[in-house]
Amino acid sequence: MREVLAEAAFQLFLERGFEQTTVDDIVARAGVGRRSFFRYFPSKEDAVFPDHDRCLADMTAYLDAAEDEDPVAAVCDAARLVLRMYAANPEFSVQRYRLTREVPGLRTYELSVVRRYERTLAGYLRARYAGTPDGGLRAEVIAAAVVAAHNNGLRTWLRSGGADDPEAAVDHALGLVREVWGSGAGGAGGVRGQAPAPVSEQAAAEGEVIVIVAPKGAPMWRVVQSIESALGEG
Amino acid sequence: MREVLAEAAFQLFLERGFEQTTVDDIVARAGVGRRSFFRYFPSKEDAVFPDHDRCLADMTAYLDAAEDEDPVAAVCDAARLVLRMYAANPEFSVQRYRLTREVPGLRTYELSVVRRYERTLAGYLRARYAGTPDGGLRAEVIAAAVVAAHNNGLRTWLRSGGADDPEAAVDHALGLVREVWGSGAGGAGGVRGQAPAPVSEQAAAEGEVIVIVAPKGAPMWRVVQSIESALGEG
Repeated sequence: MREVLAEAAFQLFLERGFEQTTVDDIVARAGVGRRSFFRYFPSKEDAVFPDHDRCLADMTAYLDAAEDEDPVAAVCDAARLVLRMYAANPEFSVQRYRLTREVPGLRTYELSVVRRYERTLAGYLRARYAGTPDGGLRAEVIAAAVVAAHNNGLRTWLRSGGADDPEAAVDHALGLVREVWGSGAGGAGGVRGQAPAPVSEQAAAEGEVIVIVAPKGAPMWRVVQSIESALGEG
Repeated sequence: MREVLAEAAFQLFLERGFEQTTVDDIVARAGVGRRSFFRYFPSKEDAVFPDHDRCLADMTAYLDAAEDEDPVAAVCDAARLVLRMYAANPEFSVQRYRLTREVPGLRTYELSVVRRYERTLAGYLRARYAGTPDGGLRAEVIAAAVVAAHNNGLRTWLRSGGADDPEAAVDHALGLVREVWGSGAGGAGGVRGQAPAPVSEQAAAEGEVIVIVAPKGAPMWRVVQSIESALGEG
């Protein structure tokens, strides 16, 4: 019933426009009573995005089970659940993307949904960073960066009309965030001020080493660029 | 007239609640006709946030004049314009923050406003990163991180009831983003793959140097932590 209503609603939105379609039109098309609609959807907007509640629940469940992983990797993987929901139905997702661009009310609704995902990711990170310096701040900044990267990749795919590989665009975008914020137990996204195992100890075990000479007052980006260049990642 | 209407509206929202206050109530309190309200504000929500349009215009103007600066520093400074708007009227800002927490429609409106700021910052960064690898992606991720950091600092101040130093909280939060993404012409936020001036050249000029030994396969966060530790920033 829920799917029948969502499908009837979406077909009417495409045929007549979102604003021009009433709930009465939708229930008539679906062949059910008016109260049935509101049993499943609080508003017309909700019928356009019928799967976000389930996806948010999946994300929460995923993160609840992800406690032992790198926090930034965990939220990146959690964000991929959203991509998979879109990728499961490319034609619908692309049509909805185009519809949403045209209807301000749907864009606003979508912002609220995106914010709920972001809060879910931030809540997980906040718990993981609890008791560390700036834990809450880092949680919010990283969650926002993950969501922005995910949505950049998702939009790239949607704009391609669903033609390209959806995973590739999102993996690439999330890779940028993990490169900057990613961590094992530490890193920029991890526990600041906690001493890591000295790199030189690893070097002894792994053999191959690089040597970097830097002035004490050098800005961090400059040092990092030198390292990336030396590591062949630049 | 605009200010009189906004003040009358806000006083009524505090006294009676946002939903319970009509536009007729507002114009009666302000002593003007109904059409005057809609001349200044498209909706009741707009009257709660009367200064964002001006602030967005100020932000755009600021960024238009900021072309020669470090892009990440420029968007951080642009974000501070929002803080200053809030800090110019602490009592109003704190009351509005509390009101917004209670009214879902205002939270949604606020999300739209935040999104407009984010798009303004991202647009500036996109132009600055034009033609560089992943320029659009980095622009969106950094804009989201700046907005999240700014809002974290702003909320810290609002939750303190406007008691603490507003600049301090936001400066600290934006500092985290600049530390990670900040750049001169290069850096993680700058032009990736463009060789920086070798750090060792600076070292010769500035005298004081550190030496880091790292395995070629070491993850970047581990190397960075070692450097931060050596530079006394860890």
